[in-house]
Amino acid sequence: MLNSIKIILVGTSHPGNIGGAARAMKNMGLSELCLVAPRAQFPHPEATFRSSGATDLLDQITIYPTLEEAISDCTLIAGTSARSRHIPWPLIDPRGLAAQAAQELQQPEHKLGLVFGREDRGLSNEELHLCHLHVHIPCNPDFSSLNLAAAVQVLSYELRQAALAQQAATPEPAEAPAFGTEWDAPFASGEDLERFFTHLETTLIDIDFHDPNHPRQLMSRLRRLYLRARPDTHEINMLRGILSLTQKAAHSRTEKP
Amino acid sequence: MLNSIKIILVGTSHPGNIGGAARAMKNMGLSELCLVAPRAQFPHPEATFRSSGATDLLDQITIYPTLEEAISDCTLIAGTSARSRHIPWPLIDPRGLAAQAAQELQQPEHKLGLVFGREDRGLSNEELHLCHLHVHIPCNPDFSSLNLAAAVQVLSYELRQAALAQQAATPEPAEAPAFGTEWDAPFASGEDLERFFTHLETTLIDIDFHDPNHPRQLMSRLRRLYLRARPDTHEINMLRGILSLTQKAAHSRTEKP
Repeated sequence: MLNSIKIILVGTSHPGNIGGAARAMKNMGLSELCLVAPRAQFPHPEATFRSSGATDLLDQITIYPTLEEAISDCTLIAGTSARSRHIPWPLIDPRGLAAQAAQELQQPEHKLGLVFGREDRGLSNEELHLCHLHVHIPCNPDFSSLNLAAAVQVLSYELRQAALAQQAATPEPAEAPAFGTEWDAPFASGEDLERFFTHLETTLIDIDFHDPNHPRQLMSRLRRLYLRARPDTHEINMLRGILSLTQKAAHSRTEKP
Repeated sequence: MLNSIKIILVGTSHPGNIGGAARAMKNMGLSELCLVAPRAQFPHPEATFRSSGATDLLDQITIYPTLEEAISDCTLIAGTSARSRHIPWPLIDPRGLAAQAAQELQQPEHKLGLVFGREDRGLSNEELHLCHLHVHIPCNPDFSSLNLAAAVQVLSYELRQAALAQQAATPEPAEAPAFGTEWDAPFASGEDLERFFTHLETTLIDIDFHDPNHPRQLMSRLRRLYLRARPDTHEINMLRGILSLTQKAAHSRTEKP
């Protein structure tokens, strides 16, 4: 389970936090760390120092220009969020996420992408809308901003506890949405989903439902709806087939004044 | 419960770790921090910096010359320990300790002292033998030394989770995505959903995606997808708006042979 988890740090400012995150991960048996558009210089001696020997993780870091690219191989994408957002999104706590991951990651083709935002302002709404779930670490409402490496520590700790519990022979009853284990098609990847959303938006423009100049949160609401359902690859193909025929109808209609 | 817990750092070397511990504690609603024979200079600007605003905790720190004095007002004393010791001691994990603390600290005269050792060599055997319990954070056996502030973070997190669970008179199952409780629109009724599915099927016939004579399980698969998402009334209205404009495009297209 633990080697099917990718920790993704978006826009990190302090190289020490990259090192601290690597140390926290390695302590808990996680190994895949990547960065999206870091604001910190990397590699950096402070990152190496704070990693306290987890340099193997630092050496293998991949840097991506966008979050879309970082999550393209993930089947479950969870973004950490301190605040409650404008549009409510499926929200889970670290223990709940760990339980769900333990169940889903039993299948080798599944992969969890766990996304952490900037030190000063977290993830943008656009970034959060790329995620199936938002994870909130319950904390003191009057002092709620965790250090980045500390947040990675808490989530990594919960994931390890869930992995250990799973190893301990007795399989847990399936609390989490049960479409993880026995499904008839693999979940769509982040890349499949983004292609679908792009296709959906184009189609909605074609049929005059969507005006990108007056978006009215439309795409955010549609993302939230479809991401909640966790579409599989078969379903994405079906939805895209519907979109293609919708576009065909739109393009061949008689224009009227 | 949380204000009956005292965090005790023994022989700390790095002032930054004192600040990091204070931040981690305040994030989780703990407030009482004390030091035993610190090797670091304190107060220190690095401690203030890493506390990230938890300066109220730093200002109230008591410094003791010995651990005996620091724990003199505690009724339950737990020492963190990375290694298994010469003489086996009652050993507990962070979740177990939090559960025990939640139970014992219901009585106002009880107080938990949670003791963390030196960065480089932990607590001495003599110090560990002052404790009722040894707490071990389960971690990667090949890379088991947590950063001091990270260890304080994990324990404080577990204590807060136990406190929250105790507060919640009827404990919620935290497993499932919580999009039932605080949502911005009521869930669609069965009736709304059936109207939507009928509208969807008609539309798919209009755009030639669906042939009711050769259904290919299409509607079953679409039902499964949308029902999994538990659409709310707002979302159903949005989807039906899309279907209406799709039908309009289909009906006004130029028929070609």
